[in-house]
Amino acid sequence: MSRESAVPPPVTAVLDASSRWLPTGLGRVEQLLREQTGGYGELLAADAGATLAAGGKRLRPLLVLICGGEGGGEDAIRGATAIELIHMATLVHDDVLDAAPLRRGVPTVAATAGRARAVATGDLLFSSAFALLAAHDQVRAIELLSRASVALAQGELAQRHDAHDASISERRYLERCELKTGALFECACLLGADEPELGRFGTEIGLAFQLLDDVLDVSGPAERTGKARGTDLLDGTVTLPLILAREADPELARADLRSLDAERAEALCDRIAATGALDRVRSRALEMVAAAKRRLEAMSLDAERRELLGLVADGVVERYA
Amino acid sequence: MSRESAVPPPVTAVLDASSRWLPTGLGRVEQLLREQTGGYGELLAADAGATLAAGGKRLRPLLVLICGGEGGGEDAIRGATAIELIHMATLVHDDVLDAAPLRRGVPTVAATAGRARAVATGDLLFSSAFALLAAHDQVRAIELLSRASVALAQGELAQRHDAHDASISERRYLERCELKTGALFECACLLGADEPELGRFGTEIGLAFQLLDDVLDVSGPAERTGKARGTDLLDGTVTLPLILAREADPELARADLRSLDAERAEALCDRIAATGALDRVRSRALEMVAAAKRRLEAMSLDAERRELLGLVADGVVERYA
Repeated sequence: MSRESAVPPPVTAVLDASSRWLPTGLGRVEQLLREQTGGYGELLAADAGATLAAGGKRLRPLLVLICGGEGGGEDAIRGATAIELIHMATLVHDDVLDAAPLRRGVPTVAATAGRARAVATGDLLFSSAFALLAAHDQVRAIELLSRASVALAQGELAQRHDAHDASISERRYLERCELKTGALFECACLLGADEPELGRFGTEIGLAFQLLDDVLDVSGPAERTGKARGTDLLDGTVTLPLILAREADPELARADLRSLDAERAEALCDRIAATGALDRVRSRALEMVAAAKRRLEAMSLDAERRELLGLVADGVVERYA
Repeated sequence: MSRESAVPPPVTAVLDASSRWLPTGLGRVEQLLREQTGGYGELLAADAGATLAAGGKRLRPLLVLICGGEGGGEDAIRGATAIELIHMATLVHDDVLDAAPLRRGVPTVAATAGRARAVATGDLLFSSAFALLAAHDQVRAIELLSRASVALAQGELAQRHDAHDASISERRYLERCELKTGALFECACLLGADEPELGRFGTEIGLAFQLLDDVLDVSGPAERTGKARGTDLLDGTVTLPLILAREADPELARADLRSLDAERAEALCDRIAATGALDRVRSRALEMVAAAKRRLEAMSLDAERRELLGLVADGVVERYA
């Protein structure tokens, strides 16, 4: 079944540990995603279908379903589908911004169909997420998801505003991560079960996820990440590895990011790695995941949800092991 | 008051004919738009504030408020604000697609802040519209607006798919107009009062509005439209003036739109105008407006709403008189 083959390893560990309802639910989300991207005409189907088929970890839908639990029902299925549609929309739009040729090793919509169709494809995916929820009166889910979408766009604006500034603070970086990544992970948990502590768990593993993603951009290898090393730097985006590396190698704060080419970006990655900053960022991420798991222990959750959420948290780390 | 000075002439005629509730409502929409674009941090405020200050006719909010009537209340105010936020989002994104330097004679977000911030600004405006409605449980309004947003994006995708094809049919053109413009005008009416006949009135004047806009792109003058003549053609977009002109001047169907520059685009505009096609398109638009007004006569509306909607329909035409 395509559902099985599309599931990446860390998610498999979660599915293996769960009862039948979780893989069944995830399969239904996959089906609903196909219906949504296929139900608005052949132009969307062609562009969004490629993004859909490129896969992805479906971490956000997984969080919705687990937090929703066995009794989450159709509302959780639709919530999980809607959040992945929003996530896909932001990926398609990000690729317009970065003019990225590849994502997950597959050509982007922006590269194959042009910026124009990519912007419209993203808008359509965005709108379809809200249309899906509105058709079933899920107004609280719309409230959560629209707020998270606002945060995502604010994070993107902040990142563009900070572009090429090698001196930005760690605090500012973490604020951006919370907007760009934490808010949607938080939203995923709350869509499943509207409990603030679960939301905070989501924020923490979302931040860890972003930190580790930013490590991968510096460490590569490109064969594994599907994009060249130093892509963020070439794009002007300063992340925690560079911020921490500045402490050991102060000249890095004066690096002229505007003059980078692919070769210089790789050299800058090597110099960042040489300071040991990558291990420090990894440690931070691991601490965040540990804190998130301690939070689970303190909550009154049933044993299955606690175990599955713990495995998702581990999965965020294992990708990078 | 800034509200008064921002109101363009056709809208003034509507306000003059109305009781106090309509200008009061429109002023509140303007206030809420400022709050929304100012309430998500200074980066959005800077970019979206310029789009907001550039004004515009506020035709869609006007339709929401009139259809809602004197008793439309806060739901109508928020519906009117949300639809204008969506409209602004699409304008900001359109300018990314077209790389347009000016809109309404004012520099676009894409031109001043770059494509990246323009995409994110549009996404933020989009999300804020749904967040506003969700915060007040207006789930039916979200359903209407998300469907219209889907249609808008479908229209944009279709237009990009048809780009540079000088042989597209009139029927295909009208389908695109219904998606790109008709759907949001229909939505505006339904947000005010959920009656299908009012929706059809909205669709008709929306189509007329688009036809007349497409005439202006060919006729100019640039001083009045705020953009160069033939901008659509340069962008590869074939509209009804060219489609009708082909009948009198069949060589136009073979025009190579990919090789146009500004000078050749102006020459092509002159050639289209020489066939009399512009008058034919204007007549079509006037027929649509007349049909829309007949529809009003057949409905059981109170006298004030009928009169005001008739004036809005006239206003769509008068811009081009």
